[in-house]
Amino acid sequence: MAGTVTVPGSSVPSTPLLKDELDIVIPTIRNLDFLEMWRPFFQPYHLIIVQDGDPTKTIKVPEGFDYELYNRNDINRILGPKASCISFKDSACRCFGYMVSKKKYIYTIDDDCFVAKDPTGKDINALEQHIKNIMSPSTPFFFNTLYDPYREGADFVRGYPFSLREGTHTAVSHGLWLNIPDYDAPTQLVKPKERNERYVDAVMTIPKGTLFPMCGMNLCFDRDLIGPAMYFGLMGDGQPIGRYDDMWAGWCVKVICDHLSLGVKTGLPYIWHSKASNPFVNLRKEYKGIFWQEDIIPFFQNVTIPKDCDTVQKCYLYLSGEVKEKLGKIDPYFVKLADAMVTWIEAWDELNPATPVAENGKVK
Amino acid sequence: MAGTVTVPGSSVPSTPLLKDELDIVIPTIRNLDFLEMWRPFFQPYHLIIVQDGDPTKTIKVPEGFDYELYNRNDINRILGPKASCISFKDSACRCFGYMVSKKKYIYTIDDDCFVAKDPTGKDINALEQHIKNIMSPSTPFFFNTLYDPYREGADFVRGYPFSLREGTHTAVSHGLWLNIPDYDAPTQLVKPKERNERYVDAVMTIPKGTLFPMCGMNLCFDRDLIGPAMYFGLMGDGQPIGRYDDMWAGWCVKVICDHLSLGVKTGLPYIWHSKASNPFVNLRKEYKGIFWQEDIIPFFQNVTIPKDCDTVQKCYLYLSGEVKEKLGKIDPYFVKLADAMVTWIEAWDELNPATPVAENGKVK
Repeated sequence: MAGTVTVPGSSVPSTPLLKDELDIVIPTIRNLDFLEMWRPFFQPYHLIIVQDGDPTKTIKVPEGFDYELYNRNDINRILGPKASCISFKDSACRCFGYMVSKKKYIYTIDDDCFVAKDPTGKDINALEQHIKNIMSPSTPFFFNTLYDPYREGADFVRGYPFSLREGTHTAVSHGLWLNIPDYDAPTQLVKPKERNERYVDAVMTIPKGTLFPMCGMNLCFDRDLIGPAMYFGLMGDGQPIGRYDDMWAGWCVKVICDHLSLGVKTGLPYIWHSKASNPFVNLRKEYKGIFWQEDIIPFFQNVTIPKDCDTVQKCYLYLSGEVKEKLGKIDPYFVKLADAMVTWIEAWDELNPATPVAENGKVK
Repeated sequence: MAGTVTVPGSSVPSTPLLKDELDIVIPTIRNLDFLEMWRPFFQPYHLIIVQDGDPTKTIKVPEGFDYELYNRNDINRILGPKASCISFKDSACRCFGYMVSKKKYIYTIDDDCFVAKDPTGKDINALEQHIKNIMSPSTPFFFNTLYDPYREGADFVRGYPFSLREGTHTAVSHGLWLNIPDYDAPTQLVKPKERNERYVDAVMTIPKGTLFPMCGMNLCFDRDLIGPAMYFGLMGDGQPIGRYDDMWAGWCVKVICDHLSLGVKTGLPYIWHSKASNPFVNLRKEYKGIFWQEDIIPFFQNVTIPKDCDTVQKCYLYLSGEVKEKLGKIDPYFVKLADAMVTWIEAWDELNPATPVAENGKVK
């Protein structure tokens, strides 16, 4: 059946495959053997591989996958001086892939994430669940106690206003992780053996006005709706901080989604996260962030985007100005970051001159 | 083991029983045969039975339970003219039980709710889970993607500000229902056969600033922290509306919890809801509410309680004034309801002259 998921054993064949509308973005420094396990689910899609670190190294991709690969030399060549906004030696470099994609949807996954099993022992097609999440509406304006009201077997409960039951467009689907949980360095150090074994069978909308820690390990989003805000910041080589790339993107994305009445979902699907990163290395990368986030969170909780910011780009440029003014006082890093946010938007618009968001100035 | 749950088969013996600190409130019009199934879990507790309807009818309570029972004559005798604030011929009458209790915690359950089973087939001790929920902190200020961070095997994820990890006091634990979901009349009519079969193994805090539909079927709360706001309104006999008693309480409770930085949790535990109420009768009760909630929700979303309201009573009296002024325009019913809210607080303070909240004017 063309355009639908036909993976053997898939119990929901009606989810569209979207293979011409979705790119998978993978940042990596090594051979992509992990793709073997994902083959039944990922092979129909085009991959954008962003090679981090030494550009002379050759990354092997298993046979049969359709991909394009960019190393640092490619990034520098394509973006010229604007390449300064793309991080080096940090998985934040993945956002270059979002920029060069021409598809409506992006799914990004880390190369230490494998196929998880649901409680019945069945392999979880993470991408299929993300597509379900992102193609059904979100409900950020009122909480539904039975979780996703659009899911089979569920609905809106008594007392849910009927005027809000249409929901709103979903811009982001944030998936979770079994096995190694996404903990910060201090928690890794304190609980080295903790594993996430709880399969919570739920998808929910994160309410309007509420911030969340967005993890880039297993993340899907609508590029047309929110792409220009999915900037993973300045991390890694030459920067005072790491491991806050996805967090930074998540905070920016959430306040812009709230402003534009777009939805962000979290929950299913799970992937199997195999490898805990080194907590000592992580502590070095994170420790400034651990201080700074105490100011960054209130900043994002209190920022108000003006009504005339009616595109993601306008919202993002407004945010960059606020970052410079309000967070620049904390550390000069934020002045540099604010400038990089502007560069990112310039580069995005250069590479995406005709996208509906950039040209029409309206969210569809 | 004194003071701990010693029910055979309970895998978590460390949850305190709180038998001297918790009352179970049950509104009913019939014999309480349903208690037989709950005996292993409820028998250690004191029951407050609020008999609705004909006061000359005798309600049979299974042997061995410790209880007090109030019928309409008792309510009229105890409250005198203030009895007008307690609904008649509607389960909203249950809030009289909250008022006469002298305990710190209340658990309220409907008499058509039975013991549910978890996915392993084990009977769920709903009260034990509520006690866990209410005795551990809430996290309303930032969303944790792995749900309740205080639960065994879970924690705060990367990017969660450390300053917010202490959480705040939990005032309400809202439990869910397997089998018959809590749908409104239109949804019941459209989906008569829908059953909730999804066991979602999660407890979460409803974020600050987000309203939710609070169902009174399976609900636990801290009377000292939020009791005076748990008024179930004017419903049933002589009123233009029914089945919005718990919703009304939930909206008032949530905005007051947000104002006082108290937490509201939802999710586990499940009970087994056996009997769908008649959707035609429900439609008659609900239809004005279905219109009105379109105005009530924005009212509660926008109400701002002044800073000097530092007790639940002060917050509630402020709300009653706003209800009269803003919702009174919709229908005279809301003027009557606003007056009843004041009467409720007067009656509460009369029966509870020495509670910490009422006297000290401070949430502990």
